[in-house]
Amino acid sequence: MKKFEEKTISSNRIYEGKIINLKVDEVSLPNGHTSKRELVEHPGAVALVAITEDNKIIMVEQYRKALERTIIEIPAGKIEKGEAPEYTAMRELEEETGYTADKLVLIQSFSTSPGFADEVIHLYAAEGLKKSTSGAVLDEDEFVELMEVTVEEAEQLMKENRIYDAKTAFAVLWAKQRLSIEN
Amino acid sequence: MKKFEEKTISSNRIYEGKIINLKVDEVSLPNGHTSKRELVEHPGAVALVAITEDNKIIMVEQYRKALERTIIEIPAGKIEKGEAPEYTAMRELEEETGYTADKLVLIQSFSTSPGFADEVIHLYAAEGLKKSTSGAVLDEDEFVELMEVTVEEAEQLMKENRIYDAKTAFAVLWAKQRLSIEN
Repeated sequence: MKKFEEKTISSNRIYEGKIINLKVDEVSLPNGHTSKRELVEHPGAVALVAITEDNKIIMVEQYRKALERTIIEIPAGKIEKGEAPEYTAMRELEEETGYTADKLVLIQSFSTSPGFADEVIHLYAAEGLKKSTSGAVLDEDEFVELMEVTVEEAEQLMKENRIYDAKTAFAVLWAKQRLSIEN
Repeated sequence: MKKFEEKTISSNRIYEGKIINLKVDEVSLPNGHTSKRELVEHPGAVALVAITEDNKIIMVEQYRKALERTIIEIPAGKIEKGEAPEYTAMRELEEETGYTADKLVLIQSFSTSPGFADEVIHLYAAEGLKKSTSGAVLDEDEFVELMEVTVEEAEQLMKENRIYDAKTAFAVLWAKQRLSIEN
């Protein structure tokens, strides 16, 4: 879909980083006017809705420098170069939570900030969850704390803004609908 | 909550733009190691779940340069300097859709990309929706097309990835729950 397309006139690369790049594009609008677009490039990420046998959602608590505080999120991680999203999701699930899944089912892919970033998150449901013998295997510079919460607890954490990111907010609503259909 | 806090050692401002800024912070991790964080600053935004009398969700279709395509989103806009989020929401609702609301109720605030950006979206339910006499009032450089879709249509648009951003995906699930409680 290219309705209202903004054609690139020129592109100025400002920064190439470890995770993100920044460029500023000059674009031609549908009415012939020109404008600038500040655009962040991101490799994309995966996230997982992993629900245990006793209907708890697996979450990780971690510090987010961008927000200068600790929040509670579903397991997620960025896609490494050349990785298929589903592989990233299996890897992150095991590394961050110590669980493995028989099967991943794509729930939805979505852009997080379409106004300025190309980041897309692929959100999977982890089915056939099993505790791996090795447990979570974190990098030595990775600090996360595992939690398992009911849907009701997750909704309370959203009210308190301790769950505070879009992918996790979506996941909580999705889990609520899924569990209400099953039960 | 400051668990696992990453303290700033130094901060290098790379870019100050019209909408976003970019800085790279050197941080001290809980184990004493240091790392770099690439951080985008954004003024924050509002978004609205506006449901018409005949249970349709108001959406806008627009081109997103970051994605190089057109997607369908709930009405939204960034917070201008000094604006209270609720004021921004009332303004964006009227400008983008030509509707006014008697009342806005905060559903949830969430970070869109906590890994690299401080952007927070405040999502409101617009209650007591009325068509304003003036209709939508767009800037001359703003190109959006209004749509009104049922929850079922919105779910189909999600499957087709024409609805493709996190705030709108959340809004569709939220509207589905709200309408199933009411009806």
